[in-house]
Amino acid sequence: MIYLDWTATSKPLKEVVEVYNKMNEEYWYNPSSMYKNAAIVKSLIDRASQSIFATLGLHDKSIYYTSGATEANNMAIQGFVMPYKNQNKHIITTEIEHASVYNVFEFLEKEGFRVTYLKCENGMIDLDELEKALTKDTILVSIMWVNNIIGSINPMKKIIDLVKAKSHAKIHSDLVQGICKIQPDFDFNDLDLMTITFHKIEGLKGIGALIINKNLQLNPLFYGGHQQNQLRPGTNDASLIVASAKAIRINFAKTIIHYQYVQKLYHYLVEKLAKFSFIDINKKGDYDLLDGYYSPYVLSISFKNIKAETAMHFLEENDILVGIGSACNEKTKMVDRSVYALTKSETKAYHMIRISLGYHNTIQELDYFIEKLQELGNK
Amino acid sequence: MIYLDWTATSKPLKEVVEVYNKMNEEYWYNPSSMYKNAAIVKSLIDRASQSIFATLGLHDKSIYYTSGATEANNMAIQGFVMPYKNQNKHIITTEIEHASVYNVFEFLEKEGFRVTYLKCENGMIDLDELEKALTKDTILVSIMWVNNIIGSINPMKKIIDLVKAKSHAKIHSDLVQGICKIQPDFDFNDLDLMTITFHKIEGLKGIGALIINKNLQLNPLFYGGHQQNQLRPGTNDASLIVASAKAIRINFAKTIIHYQYVQKLYHYLVEKLAKFSFIDINKKGDYDLLDGYYSPYVLSISFKNIKAETAMHFLEENDILVGIGSACNEKTKMVDRSVYALTKSETKAYHMIRISLGYHNTIQELDYFIEKLQELGNK
Repeated sequence: MIYLDWTATSKPLKEVVEVYNKMNEEYWYNPSSMYKNAAIVKSLIDRASQSIFATLGLHDKSIYYTSGATEANNMAIQGFVMPYKNQNKHIITTEIEHASVYNVFEFLEKEGFRVTYLKCENGMIDLDELEKALTKDTILVSIMWVNNIIGSINPMKKIIDLVKAKSHAKIHSDLVQGICKIQPDFDFNDLDLMTITFHKIEGLKGIGALIINKNLQLNPLFYGGHQQNQLRPGTNDASLIVASAKAIRINFAKTIIHYQYVQKLYHYLVEKLAKFSFIDINKKGDYDLLDGYYSPYVLSISFKNIKAETAMHFLEENDILVGIGSACNEKTKMVDRSVYALTKSETKAYHMIRISLGYHNTIQELDYFIEKLQELGNK
Repeated sequence: MIYLDWTATSKPLKEVVEVYNKMNEEYWYNPSSMYKNAAIVKSLIDRASQSIFATLGLHDKSIYYTSGATEANNMAIQGFVMPYKNQNKHIITTEIEHASVYNVFEFLEKEGFRVTYLKCENGMIDLDELEKALTKDTILVSIMWVNNIIGSINPMKKIIDLVKAKSHAKIHSDLVQGICKIQPDFDFNDLDLMTITFHKIEGLKGIGALIINKNLQLNPLFYGGHQQNQLRPGTNDASLIVASAKAIRINFAKTIIHYQYVQKLYHYLVEKLAKFSFIDINKKGDYDLLDGYYSPYVLSISFKNIKAETAMHFLEENDILVGIGSACNEKTKMVDRSVYALTKSETKAYHMIRISLGYHNTIQELDYFIEKLQELGNK
């Protein structure tokens, strides 16, 4: 089976599962209890947090563990802006965000916030447009690092510098598709709020994290006990947390080596696919010149005369798994927002499949995939 | 080591961990993806839900998986009442709820809802007081089944009948300390919303569930993809879900047999402790006559002249683990709301430890515990 849907999720690493099992075997006590066994569990959580900070080179940050990136994105955005409700404040995001950011902004628009959705006609945002959008009332800018469908990489360093120079807005970024995959051109410390998750980087599902500046005040999404500064109450799952720290530690260290390998696969794939007249590659410009603008881990292609579902099922019959848009949106069967933003074509946004590579893939697998895609095109 | 803090959490069953590991090994695909491997994962989630429904004898219900009981309680309460905001509506709860219910009601009070907190002077609510509190504007009644500190059992059957007879209010119950422990005197189907969790019944942490009537509309706590009817978006963790269904299936079937065993331990313990003049047992009335009113799984005692922390640490030095109030509140060092509601004594609510039994405990363990408690009293 050839798995080309790494952007949707990944199989947990053996080492990660081992840590999880060890935690459940020995350190299953409630970390909020007051005896020593519980204090040990609590200290393992603290060590995991320190390990994540060290891995990402972070200082003066707080980390809040959530059920995943969706909750972390909501906690960041709803949590930060809600205290400003009914104050006619302005917030900025992009039209290619994941649903767990985009739909929060749509909700906030209904709640009375003024929202700017930055266009992404080249895949990434336009800095001039961002500059023009920033006002003295702008309180939050949320821009994803790497897009999950078309793979575009936003110029985070320039975004951060611009927002800091021209406004008092805080900056949030959904880092989910960048972490452990792309070497950042920016310092994570310069983000005020950032969302990470672990199941996309060979960790376990059911956990994500929001990392924020230590002094930043957020409203909680829900109320309860005193865990996690009351901002995110509920029994902490030390097993998931410690296993997650393991996953990110292992794979972050391999970011460059994995990138270089996957980039080779990607170039190979793009070169072959560019010759197929029955598809369009959803990127702008000269692909060879665009290194650094698009992630080699994600490639979106649109069929000219084949439905995405037909293509996906044909590939599946040949033991190749690809995605149709974001797994988070598949139920809606709607045109994909990111592809539409880039191509302005409903047809392309509808007849789209997403090929997402991982460092486990091989050139041989891609050859087989390309062969099958050719077969499909010949039909 | 003698673990007497089963109310805080429990060690996951071997069978549960095995299911979890098998899922992560074979069924780690994103259940929202469209290919067959993902559909299998999705169908395993559906089967787990059907299994939970069958276990609890539920029909015409929907289940939403959350990060735990705290989120589920919030989703139930915030989710149900928020559409009625600014309509001067009335909601009812009790003064002995877990923080993840009580603090939500305090939040909703600030949001403009009228709130009645039912007194619990006997540990459980007074039905006359509930009847008087119900009005035509009452939209929600949230009453926990079994209290997590003093172990009082609310008369759920009578509560349900009364609320249905006298109002149009929906009924929510936090079932966390009752499920798999107490044989219900009511039909779970008669609750409109109910919260369960799994780590207290030898399942894994990081997951809970809200079960609601199929036709019931709730506001989401957060926004994102289309998972779980958009009410609770985010990648579903099939591994945690399937493992949770296993935990509840195994232990629900043993409710009566475990109850009978733990009840014997409890009677034995209460009889011995009643003779200790240096403590008070936080129950009302003649203990022997009160079977069915208090859970044998939880016993709260207050020291007359010993600090709870001193007691806990003395016991810990002797390898006995007990709780000081709810693990979810331990950081606050506040007087316990449940004990205070029952005793009206700040001293008792402060100098309190919670002994919570599990079916793994033995009479020999209790003998040792009682011996050590006697030593502490003699100091």
